[in-house]
Amino acid sequence: MASDSESPSKNPGLRSDPPDEETKGYFVQQTMYRIKDPKVSLKFYSDVLGMSLLKRLDFPDMKFSLYFMGYEDTSSAPKDPIERTEWTFGRKATIELTHNWGTEDDPNFEAYHNGNSDPRGFGHIGITVDDTYKACKRFESLNVPFVKKPDDGKMKGIAFIKDPDGYWIEIFDCKNVTAVAHAAASKTE
Amino acid sequence: MASDSESPSKNPGLRSDPPDEETKGYFVQQTMYRIKDPKVSLKFYSDVLGMSLLKRLDFPDMKFSLYFMGYEDTSSAPKDPIERTEWTFGRKATIELTHNWGTEDDPNFEAYHNGNSDPRGFGHIGITVDDTYKACKRFESLNVPFVKKPDDGKMKGIAFIKDPDGYWIEIFDCKNVTAVAHAAASKTE
Repeated sequence: MASDSESPSKNPGLRSDPPDEETKGYFVQQTMYRIKDPKVSLKFYSDVLGMSLLKRLDFPDMKFSLYFMGYEDTSSAPKDPIERTEWTFGRKATIELTHNWGTEDDPNFEAYHNGNSDPRGFGHIGITVDDTYKACKRFESLNVPFVKKPDDGKMKGIAFIKDPDGYWIEIFDCKNVTAVAHAAASKTE
Repeated sequence: MASDSESPSKNPGLRSDPPDEETKGYFVQQTMYRIKDPKVSLKFYSDVLGMSLLKRLDFPDMKFSLYFMGYEDTSSAPKDPIERTEWTFGRKATIELTHNWGTEDDPNFEAYHNGNSDPRGFGHIGITVDDTYKACKRFESLNVPFVKKPDDGKMKGIAFIKDPDGYWIEIFDCKNVTAVAHAAASKTE
């Protein structure tokens, strides 16, 4: 049973039946965005955010590479390259970094667009951490740029950092984000 | 142990040590993008893709609402609204749809940008399904627009559909995507 705010009667368009059987087993496997320089992005996602490289795929004919990053223990991943690819596509919530070869040293390359200025669309990914303030202190010590520090603005305890291409990453812990969301959200629920 | 393509020696920037202890417990909780009309998007994500509405949060002062969609059994979700928010932020791989109020009936509203034409950046989300061809037959019967049908082009067995705002969603099953990726990818690994 959904809590009141999530009921189909309050959310036109939302199905009121159980999910279609045909969609059983579906899961969100990836979020893909383009990166300028894998050397810089791999460092950020593996060092700063603590992800691992689950799978790299190179496409020489089309001159691009894919780097699947995620929070998985790769020591349990298959060693065979093909099995490892299948294993990767079976993991939830990976970040697929797409590198079109040559952007990293092309002086004419313009930065990728993060979606938060016109034309808007994509906003950010969000990472749940154990403690927002502790995580942000560490990000500061690592010279990570912030869009919003946890005590900036009204929404205390939520931060936004930038990855090397300028994509926004929201940083929050369950307790802080819940308190902030409910302080700002409608009291009618 | 990583397979060869994923080793730090072949991937400059990638850490060679285990993840920093400080990042323990981090996970990718959300991917956020903006939507024009929740009625249309809720129908698509719940009916067509089989997701559930995990949490809705309304921010009347700032005139926007958030709809967290995901593949979770909401019958096990807490009924208390605040606990349900905390539960939601504890789930992996949710899609956070942001609705800025009024876009749905504003004749001057220009569509959101999906990131795949200039200025590029964000690419898509990807959903692992049980069988690409079966899933795509159902999408066709539901009149979902395709960017690429599974048998278009070289990459057989991988499809891209469009959500109501034009965001791309990759559709694949583990077997097909692995075969296609390795047929196109470097043979050097």
